[in-house]
Amino acid sequence: KETVCIFGTGDFGRALGYRMIQSGYSVVFGSRQAQTSSLIPKDAEVLSHAEAAQKAAIIIIAIPRQHYNFLTPLAEILHGKVLVDVSNNLKLNQYSQSNAEYLAQLIPGAKVVKAFNTVSAWALQSGPLDASRQVFVCGDDKKAKQIVMDIVRALGLTPLDQGSLLAAQEIENYPLQLFPMWKFPIFLSLGLTAFFFFYSLTRDVIYPYVYENKDFSFFIAISIPNRICPIVALILLALVYLPGVLAAIIQLYRGTKYSRFPDGLDKWMLCRKQLGLVALAFAFLHVLYTLIIPIRYYVRWRMNSGVLSQALNNRTDPFINTYGWLNDSYLALGILGFFLFVLLGITSLPSVSNSVNWREFRFVQSKLGYLTLILCTAHTLVYGGKQFLNVSSYRCLSVILLLMARER
Amino acid sequence: KETVCIFGTGDFGRALGYRMIQSGYSVVFGSRQAQTSSLIPKDAEVLSHAEAAQKAAIIIIAIPRQHYNFLTPLAEILHGKVLVDVSNNLKLNQYSQSNAEYLAQLIPGAKVVKAFNTVSAWALQSGPLDASRQVFVCGDDKKAKQIVMDIVRALGLTPLDQGSLLAAQEIENYPLQLFPMWKFPIFLSLGLTAFFFFYSLTRDVIYPYVYENKDFSFFIAISIPNRICPIVALILLALVYLPGVLAAIIQLYRGTKYSRFPDGLDKWMLCRKQLGLVALAFAFLHVLYTLIIPIRYYVRWRMNSGVLSQALNNRTDPFINTYGWLNDSYLALGILGFFLFVLLGITSLPSVSNSVNWREFRFVQSKLGYLTLILCTAHTLVYGGKQFLNVSSYRCLSVILLLMARER
Amino acid sequence: KETVCIFGTGDFGRALGYRMIQSGYSVVFGSRQAQTSSLIPKDAEVLSHAEAAQKAAIIIIAIPRQHYNFLTPLAEILHGKVLVDVSNNLKLNQYSQSNAEYLAQLIPGAKVVKAFNTVSAWALQSGPLDASRQVFVCGDDKKAKQIVMDIVRALGLTPLDQGSLLAAQEIENYPLQLFPMWKFPIFLSLGLTAFFFFYSLTRDVIYPYVYENKDFSFFIAISIPNRICPIVALILLALVYLPGVLAAIIQLYRGTKYSRFPDGLDKWMLCRKQLGLVALAFAFLHVLYTLIIPIRYYVRWRMNSGVLSQALNNRTDPFINTYGWLNDSYLALGILGFFLFVLLGITSLPSVSNSVNWREFRFVQSKLGYLTLILCTAHTLVYGGKQFLNVSSYRCLSVILLLMARER
Ligand SMILES: Cc1cc2nc3c(=O)[nH]c(=O)nc-3n(C[C@H](O)[C@H](O)[C@H](O)COP(=O)(O)OP(=O)(O)OC[C@H]3O[C@@H](n4cnc5c(N)ncnc54)[C@H](O)[C@@H]3O)c2cc1C
Ligand SMILES: Cc1cc2nc3c(=O)[nH]c(=O)nc-3n(C[C@H](O)[C@H](O)[C@H](O)COP(=O)(O)OP(=O)(O)OC[C@H]3O[C@@H](n4cnc5c(N)ncnc54)[C@H](O)[C@@H]3O)c2cc1C
Ligand SMILES: Cc1cc2nc3c(=O)[nH]c(=O)nc-3n(C[C@H](O)[C@H](O)[C@H](O)COP(=O)(O)OP(=O)(O)OC[C@H]3O[C@@H](n4cnc5c(N)ncnc54)[C@H](O)[C@@H]3O)c2cc1C
Ligand SMILES: NC(=O)c1ccc[n+]([C@@H]2O[C@H](COP(=O)([O-])OP(=O)(O)OC[C@H]3O[C@@H](n4cnc5c(N)ncnc54)[C@H](OP(=O)(O)O)[C@@H]3O)[C@@H](O)[C@H]2O)c1
Ligand SMILES: NC(=O)c1ccc[n+]([C@@H]2O[C@H](COP(=O)([O-])OP(=O)(O)OC[C@H]3O[C@@H](n4cnc5c(N)ncnc54)[C@H](OP(=O)(O)O)[C@@H]3O)[C@@H](O)[C@H]2O)c1
Ligand SMILES: NC(=O)c1ccc[n+]([C@@H]2O[C@H](COP(=O)([O-])OP(=O)(O)OC[C@H]3O[C@@H](n4cnc5c(N)ncnc54)[C@H](OP(=O)(O)O)[C@@H]3O)[C@@H](O)[C@H]2O)c1
Ligand SMILES: CCCCCCCCCCCCCCCC(=O)OC[C@H](COP(=O)(O)O)OC(=O)CCCCCCCCCCCCCCC
Ligand SMILES: CCCCCCCCCCCCCCCC(=O)OC[C@H](COP(=O)(O)O)OC(=O)CCCCCCCCCCCCCCC
Ligand SMILES: CCCCCCCCCCCCCCCC(=O)OC[C@H](COP(=O)(O)O)OC(=O)CCCCCCCCCCCCCCC
Ligand code: HEM
Ligand code: HEM
Ligand code: HEM
Repeated sequence: KETVCIFGTGDFGRALGYRMIQSGYSVVFGSRQAQTSSLIPKDAEVLSHAEAAQKAAIIIIAIPRQHYNFLTPLAEILHGKVLVDVSNNLKLNQYSQSNAEYLAQLIPGAKVVKAFNTVSAWALQSGPLDASRQVFVCGDDKKAKQIVMDIVRALGLTPLDQGSLLAAQEIENYPLQLFPMWKFPIFLSLGLTAFFFFYSLTRDVIYPYVYENKDFSFFIAISIPNRICPIVALILLALVYLPGVLAAIIQLYRGTKYSRFPDGLDKWMLCRKQLGLVALAFAFLHVLYTLIIPIRYYVRWRMNSGVLSQALNNRTDPFINTYGWLNDSYLALGILGFFLFVLLGITSLPSVSNSVNWREFRFVQSKLGYLTLILCTAHTLVYGGKQFLNVSSYRCLSVILLLMARER
Repeated sequence: KETVCIFGTGDFGRALGYRMIQSGYSVVFGSRQAQTSSLIPKDAEVLSHAEAAQKAAIIIIAIPRQHYNFLTPLAEILHGKVLVDVSNNLKLNQYSQSNAEYLAQLIPGAKVVKAFNTVSAWALQSGPLDASRQVFVCGDDKKAKQIVMDIVRALGLTPLDQGSLLAAQEIENYPLQLFPMWKFPIFLSLGLTAFFFFYSLTRDVIYPYVYENKDFSFFIAISIPNRICPIVALILLALVYLPGVLAAIIQLYRGTKYSRFPDGLDKWMLCRKQLGLVALAFAFLHVLYTLIIPIRYYVRWRMNSGVLSQALNNRTDPFINTYGWLNDSYLALGILGFFLFVLLGITSLPSVSNSVNWREFRFVQSKLGYLTLILCTAHTLVYGGKQFLNVSSYRCLSVILLLMARER
Repeated sequence: KETVCIFGTGDFGRALGYRMIQSGYSVVFGSRQAQTSSLIPKDAEVLSHAEAAQKAAIIIIAIPRQHYNFLTPLAEILHGKVLVDVSNNLKLNQYSQSNAEYLAQLIPGAKVVKAFNTVSAWALQSGPLDASRQVFVCGDDKKAKQIVMDIVRALGLTPLDQGSLLAAQEIENYPLQLFPMWKFPIFLSLGLTAFFFFYSLTRDVIYPYVYENKDFSFFIAISIPNRICPIVALILLALVYLPGVLAAIIQLYRGTKYSRFPDGLDKWMLCRKQLGLVALAFAFLHVLYTLIIPIRYYVRWRMNSGVLSQALNNRTDPFINTYGWLNDSYLALGILGFFLFVLLGITSLPSVSNSVNWREFRFVQSKLGYLTLILCTAHTLVYGGKQFLNVSSYRCLSVILLLMARER
């Protein structure tokens, strides 16, 4: 098989070398110290950069960008060769120009291809982890790109053609990201969680403690989370479908679909998927918390003491039909809402959303999405019914005032 | 970067133009009115069709099919150029010939490529929605197809090569479909639901109301759905595995695997996946309805009144071992059945089914599928045990007779 | 459209022929008996091998490997043609050389391409099943490979380029595998299940029966599985994260990342995904078994008799705050642990893990994975609390001794 040259005998260069030799390539390293060491794969030669480059048509530059300038003297030897840029940066958009474009500019005669930067040295050595089997490849020369893609495939990885070298910037940024689109939804939900936590804590734990000297601190484990989660889920779900309405209003008002939305609205619209999935996560927790209600010691104790007080007083509470109706219907609404919610989640899986067309996707996400929102809201309203208007919010306020009064 | 010409300054033409300019292409529009308007992207030129066509090697025809005949006079200028057909129709198989093939026939000298029809103008403008990132491309000329695929990629979309222009008909039909394979399973399940709903309503609500004057109308919310859902799920599940058996019988009877199945059987076999998933959805609802049973007010009330009547009568019902066995085993069978059911669902996800081979897929879908059916049936039988043979069905009949008698 | 020649009129050859004719190709069969039969597609010609080969540039060899030697006399006619090897073997690595390479060696002048072996004759005839839409293609000649890939696409299947003919061995092994990576995790979990089953059976069923003459045999359906499942899940989960720790220790001890791990550790590390998913399956069962606890007849009976004994003795057990805390917190820990567990499961879906980068994947799998393990362990410990130290393990031992004593 063909010979490939690798510049740089660092972590990445060696790991790539090992793997290529395993796949049947013959490898020659170009290094500042042209001598084999115990770390370097046995079947590989180590030569000076110039000598190594002459032995192969493809040269992989496994050297950090800041040292690229040592290549300028070699420009002549590198002329017409395929140079593979594998480098990553430490920060997003660290340089104005992508590393690959910088390399192409340094050695104008060479055919630069960007590849391999998403694979780690460790993954190459130990068999690729699930998330790093895909290798993004880009470059201006089609033949060169094809050659590199064949090497990628031969190493057991999956090449993905990303077009011309312009795409290099994005490819270099890719491995540096950590869930960029999820940040806002997650922080928002954490903020809401904190807010409702302190609200519920005051209302359900501190207030009874201060006024009635009852210790309900164990509510922190389940009762309070099961108040927070559904409310946050519902708010987030509403926030998923609100921007669509705002956008429609703006479009109607402006009379055109073609002017840009205000910046905030635009960003908001782009993270609706993530908002929706975080909402689903909260709803899922709500459902789990709800389903274990009857297992809880506190709940069982309360039920038993209810029965006991009836027994001891020789009394049997009658069945109230309206309660039966209200209770069963808010549960049924919750179940249907959750079912559709899960359906929305399933259609968000990339492989499912890729196999439906645009009409089908919008039918599920938009039509069924609104239905989900309606069902969940109805569930809450029927449940909340009377409770919404009771004294509790007033109570909460008075606790806060009381606490403030005490601090003085 | 290269120049691309777009014929038509309508919604789609403009949206595509914007996007191409953003991606670094220079765009020239061909229009009936060769003058820029405020709607047209700033950096684009607007010329007459003939002038515009001469400036580029690729021409995107963003004009509805019914106006294609205006192209015939331009045949000479378009000779040798790449024509991209983006058009959609309003109905499935509206014309006998696909739009792209019609275009190829109008301008025989041009290289026609079908692309972009699955992307909406709106998605181009506002960042692609999840379901429209894939662009199906087909065409008889490989070079031309390659050029168009590169453009697709440059716009941040994913091209999918579908082969020769013959595929155009299918590509044009694709965005017009709304879950074609799901129609039959969904209607079937709705029909079954309606049937069992009225049956249960009569039996569990109307009958007690008429004969015993008890108001159980709230059963409509949970009790009745939790009777309908599992039965429908089981029927659908059985319908998934029945055609395989029928097919085997027919094959044995005919002595050959190679004659076609009767048409109905064929269609039935092709929608088993959808039938199975709808069954899973109903089973999922059954499980949710079941798990909230102990939270229901009605159930809690009934349990309490049971205990109270024992307490007041100074009686303690003994534990009956057989009941313990029957109850625990039907629950365990249900759980195992549901677990396998979910496993079947997971292997239906396109990304999972693509990463298993045919033997593995059949092992799960066929072997474990039959096991699922057996477990679910056993669950039902053990649950039903005695109840199946009791008077209820007789009761139901008499209610219907009664109602009919009253109407007269 | 072009003419394709198929050698062999067996099951696969005929099925492929049918399908190609449907897709617009003209097909000519090469057979030992050059005569049409009723089984052979109507529009196809059947000729002798030599005659058929001359009519087409592509020849599909639908004949088992052991008969390939009949091709040697035809070497001249086959020179320069594209030969498609579709054959499978009966065992993994049956021959040292892959069938395709053997074919290439027999007819050195031909361009051999491996393809279609993952599709079954049945799937070709009846519309492809979900798991066999992907056709792996490999070959040394790029043009030939391209031609075959176009045919694959035209048949409605998805070609996947796997590189050079070296990949043939792997492609031939692919359809013979049945979940190779899942074997160890599944056997391990079955072993653990069996062990804990007999342990629990002795402790919870046999012991009470022998000593107290109580019949708790119905525990086999739910109570015992709900003891086994969570323990096995926790052990497997721990086994997922243990090798990472061992590997880190070995690396630190050896002072290098570059020496190979001991063989066992290596294999262990490669099946962690499967171990983790099996653990999830067991945890899922645990959750289902737990959620139906309050529906069980036995549990309801026990609760009722508890209340009754209080009522009859005119006693009301007080609420113990510590119990409230302990109970609610182990439930909450379990819920959070399970939630993260499911999240790990979702990111293992191929389509999701392909759309996150390596940092994101490791964040979820490694960081959140450890968190999951911690939460699940805490859940167990808080639940186990006192029970761990009680007499039961002593009891169990004594039963075993007793049984052994009796046998004599
Ligand atoms: C669990 C869950 C999962 C989710 N997963 C996803 C996901 O995977 N991907 C995702 O994008 N969102 C997802 N979402 C968010 C949400 O469901 C979708 O964004 C949904 O499409 C919003 O619908 P809409 O009708 O409010 O807004 P939009 O569909 O954005 O509509 C807003 C306005 O634009 C117009 N408009 C929209 N599309 C077009 C078009 N193509 N052509 C012309 N006009 C148009 C509409 O008429 C309307 O006036 C998810 C939500 C949840 C709760
Ligand atoms: C939750 C759920 C999800 C499902 N998801 C899917 C899905 O994703 N995709 C899907 O297709 N189905 C799906 N199904 C439907 C069903 O599980 C499968 O169709 C299953 O393969 C049917 O198995 P079978 O053995 O009854 O029929 P078949 O496998 O069709 O067998 C019928 C007859 O044909 C013969 N036969 C079958 N295949 C071959 C072959 N390759 N070569 C020779 N002879 C053959 C068999 O011997 C048998 O005689 C799903 C079902 C459920 C409940
Ligand atoms: C439900 C579930 C699903 C799972 N799904 C998957 C799955 O889909 N795919 C999968 O692979 N595993 C999966 N796992 C297994 C497990 O979560 C992962 O293997 C996880 O990455 C192990 O993390 P770790 O930190 O223990 O080990 P590792 O990440 O293997 O780390 C071990 C050692 O190697 C070092 N190291 C690891 N990676 C690198 C690197 N790239 N560069 C340098 N050094 C490195 C670490 O520093 C550490 O010292 C799953 C587990 C569960 C419970
Ligand atoms: N490590 C990874 O997981 C990983 C993953 C993807 C991409 N990458 C990229 O791969 C490249 C190398 O990474 P690495 O981890 O291998 O780095 P490294 O271990 O620091 O190795 C860098 C190598 O570059 C050479 N070098 C250093 N300074 C030089 C100079 N002034 N002139 C010429 N050569 C010089 C040295 O090789 P000699 O001593 O042989 O001259 C050195 O071994 C980087 O661009 C990195 O972004 C790394
Ligand atoms: N809109 C979408 O979301 C979408 C999505 C996918 C595909 N498509 C396809 O794109 C094509 C255009 O759709 P559109 O929504 O842009 O339609 P449109 O808004 O109605 O625009 C059509 C354009 O065609 C030109 N035109 C109309 N009649 C003509 C005639 N007799 N002779 C020459 N030119 C004529 C006009 O451009 P000038 O005034 O400049 O001549 C007009 O602006 C259609 O085939 C459609 O199926 C649209
Ligand atoms: N069946 C499948 O589902 C499937 C799937 C993937 C791959 N394959 C592969 O396709 C190939 C054929 O499989 P099949 O199921 O079609 O087998 P088959 O039904 O046994 O047919 C084999 C054909 O090979 C020809 N043949 C047999 N002995 C021969 C000899 N000594 N010299 C010349 N020709 C001979 C015969 O055709 P004539 O009578 O016309 O000469 C015969 O019909 C195998 O390599 C198999 O691995 C099959
Ligand atoms: C049961 C409810 C489901 C469980 C809990 C909800 C989890 C929701 C959180 C999802 C987090 C996904 C992390 C994605 C990482 C990422 O960045 O992923 C990024 C990808 C890439 O998206 P792009 O295509 O936008 O690049 O996005 C996703 O893959 C979205 C995954 C959606 C997952 C939905 C899962 C729903 C499954 C429902 C199963 C049914 C359960 C029924 C139960 C009782
Ligand atoms: C919990 C049970 C799961 C939840 C409820 C069941 C939902 C089943 C309905 C699925 C509907 C999918 C819509 C598909 C749209 C479409 O056309 O999709 C079309 C695609 C394309 O299929 P083709 O490959 O045939 O073109 O089909 C699918 O993608 C099938 C999706 C299967 C989804 C199965 C989900 C199972 C997930 C189980 C999670 C575990 C949960 C455990 C919980 C307690
Ligand atoms: C609810 C919990 C989920 C249900 C039960 C757990 C099931 C776990 C077992 C998965 C078995 C997958 C078989 C794969 C076949 C195969 O070889 O598949 C092989 C593929 C290929 O993997 P490679 O990429 O390694 O080749 O692996 C997979 O696809 C892994 C599939 C992971 C599935 C995880 C599903 C989690 C879904 C969670 C949904 C949320 C539910 C919430 C509910 C209350
Ligand atoms: C299986 C599905 C569901 C069931 C069984 C269910 C059940 C319940 C129950 C029992 C309560 C009362 C909680 C308490 O007493 O503290 C409740 C409250 C609530 N639920 Fe649900 N629910 C479900 C799904 C959902 C979904 C999908 C949402 C939407 C986001 C939701 C939103 C709410 C809200 C907002 C409350 C009020 C919380 C409060 O103020 O205390 N529920 N639900
Ligand atoms: C977690 C899993 C499951 C549990 C806990 C469970 C539990 C139950 C319970 C408690 C009942 C009695 C309902 C009532 O009293 O009205 C029941 C009935 C039934 N279940 Fe399930 N089940 C499960 C899964 C399934 C599955 C997967 C199926 C298959 C489709 C199924 C089919 C049925 C049927 C057909 C009935 C009889 C309905 C009737 O006639 O009322 N169950 N199940
Ligand atoms: C929704 C989430 C969960 C809930 C509600 C839950 C609930 C419970 C309950 C009620 C018990 C006591 C069982 C009994 O009385 O026999 C238990 C035990 C246990 N759970 Fe969980 N659990 C959950 C998730 C998990 C997870 C994810 C794991 C981790 C693998 C786990 C591991 C265990 C273990 C090891 C035991 C002790 C089993 C024994 O020795 O009997 N649980 N859990």
